Amino acid sequence: MNNAYNKSLPANTQLTQISVNRCFDGEQHYYSHESSSTNTSMTFSIYLPDEALLGHRCPALLYLSGLTCNADNVTHKAHFQQRCSELGMIFIAPDTSPRSSEGTEVPNDERYFVGQGASYYVDATQSPWSEHFNMQSYIVDELYDLLRSEFAISSIGVTGHSMGGHGALLLGFKFPSKFVSVSALSPVCAASESAWGEAAYTEYFGDDKTLWAQADASHTIKTVGRQYSSILVDQGAADNFLAKGQLQTQKLQQACEDAKQPLTLRYQAGHDHSYYFIQTVINDHIEHHWRKAQLA
Amino acid sequence: MNNAYNKSLPANTQLTQISVNRCFDGEQHYYSHESSSTNTSMTFSIYLPDEALLGHRCPALLYLSGLTCNADNVTHKAHFQQRCSELGMIFIAPDTSPRSSEGTEVPNDERYFVGQGASYYVDATQSPWSEHFNMQSYIVDELYDLLRSEFAISSIGVTGHSMGGHGALLLGFKFPSKFVSVSALSPVCAASESAWGEAAYTEYFGDDKTLWAQADASHTIKTVGRQYSSILVDQGAADNFLAKGQLQTQKLQQACEDAKQPLTLRYQAGHDHSYYFIQTVINDHIEHHWRKAQLA
Repeated sequence: MNNAYNKSLPANTQLTQISVNRCFDGEQHYYSHESSSTNTSMTFSIYLPDEALLGHRCPALLYLSGLTCNADNVTHKAHFQQRCSELGMIFIAPDTSPRSSEGTEVPNDERYFVGQGASYYVDATQSPWSEHFNMQSYIVDELYDLLRSEFAISSIGVTGHSMGGHGALLLGFKFPSKFVSVSALSPVCAASESAWGEAAYTEYFGDDKTLWAQADASHTIKTVGRQYSSILVDQGAADNFLAKGQLQTQKLQQACEDAKQPLTLRYQAGHDHSYYFIQTVINDHIEHHWRKAQLA
Repeated sequence: MNNAYNKSLPANTQLTQISVNRCFDGEQHYYSHESSSTNTSMTFSIYLPDEALLGHRCPALLYLSGLTCNADNVTHKAHFQQRCSELGMIFIAPDTSPRSSEGTEVPNDERYFVGQGASYYVDATQSPWSEHFNMQSYIVDELYDLLRSEFAISSIGVTGHSMGGHGALLLGFKFPSKFVSVSALSPVCAASESAWGEAAYTEYFGDDKTLWAQADASHTIKTVGRQYSSILVDQGAADNFLAKGQLQTQKLQQACEDAKQPLTLRYQAGHDHSYYFIQTVINDHIEHHWRKAQLA
């Protein structure tokens, strides 16, 4: 381990460092911290190019992962480190939900699209979820402020995959003052009208369809209108979840048309929903966010 | 899944296809097959750029993994697919040993550096290992011939990490007519004189130190002399296993000097033994093998 570059953590850090590995011209770090939003300990990974380790402010990209994932999937499999090292970009991967740990019992569900690993990045209003499942507040307020105080960050863009693509679109358009750029990979475009999301929102929001709509990415874009000069979305054309109606990319396309929000939407021939697809397009997303950060 | 490109498997294939995922301009495949060398079923991954899927012969790189790994580690974490897609190179990752499965009991050991996941790519002579642990024959004869008959391969280079780096150097110099190029990442350079290798060779070869020497990469290079125009080795300078004497890079350097085998040896500042290091240098290795294949 070589911590010689690491000048970026303040002395009064709230973070516990889990691991450091040098990777290209930078370091892959993991941290945990106590969250007042989720009332649990939370873990995230952060890739810091040497510029950031030396204290120069760099643009950051926040990546929200999909159902069943934690920070490891994207950190191990998405292959973002090389381009982030080359451009001088920070890459942050939070967990997808609060989780049970020794001494903390977090509610769960046997369905993989509800409960732990499936927060949808919303603040739940219904018991028993509302005590811990406050991932919107966690991402947009608590983690956001923590990252900006602990690391040399100049601006933050948001992206994500599948349920995390929903999260990126939803939070990017609900809180446009927080983010300089938005993109998504294989996003769940209309959570309130997909089988996955209907199951989750029944648990998290009960019958209040106003809350469902406020937690739907396409509905939110239509409501708030254009917020970004352009957004980038990639979708595998051979993605089974697209065929099964979970993603509903056409609803995002319609919402962006209605909102006059410029959208670059690319259907990639032969590609599925896996991290093999994500690694194929991730560099284009890093470059999209890097360019927007230069103009911010 | 898109198999439209896949023209490369002959009708009388011995292979069972486990999975296909499109990745960059190519496909990541997994296969299993019955091996007469190991008397087990064996699994490997192979990345096929579109050129190979369309039947054009491409150079191939055989990657031998390290202790505790199977084909997944490198396939998920090494990030070779992009450059292989760009260059038109095939990338093959076999398993590190035979393994127990339903109906087949393969010997094992509680130490992670002996038994399943730790073949050292040798043919064991001692019971109970010798019935299954014949990975030299598996790699150099059986899998080698199978790959050449089933896929559009023009030539094969060999590389590997840690125990697999030992395997690449050992098999590359024992069988130079089979391989057009050799490289290694963080290799175990003198297995017969490292604590890991001593434990394993005691099991696989018993007391016959002649066999130990024949299964030692540095000893083999010294014995057979120069075989390649140059070989490439990368080593993390902050690798704990280097500090603990398991890798003994200086013995490889001395052997290459004695054998007049040109060696490009790079100690990479701050880097450890992990796949974060491997992804940092893998493109240089792919390019090394690709250049040698152009001259073959």
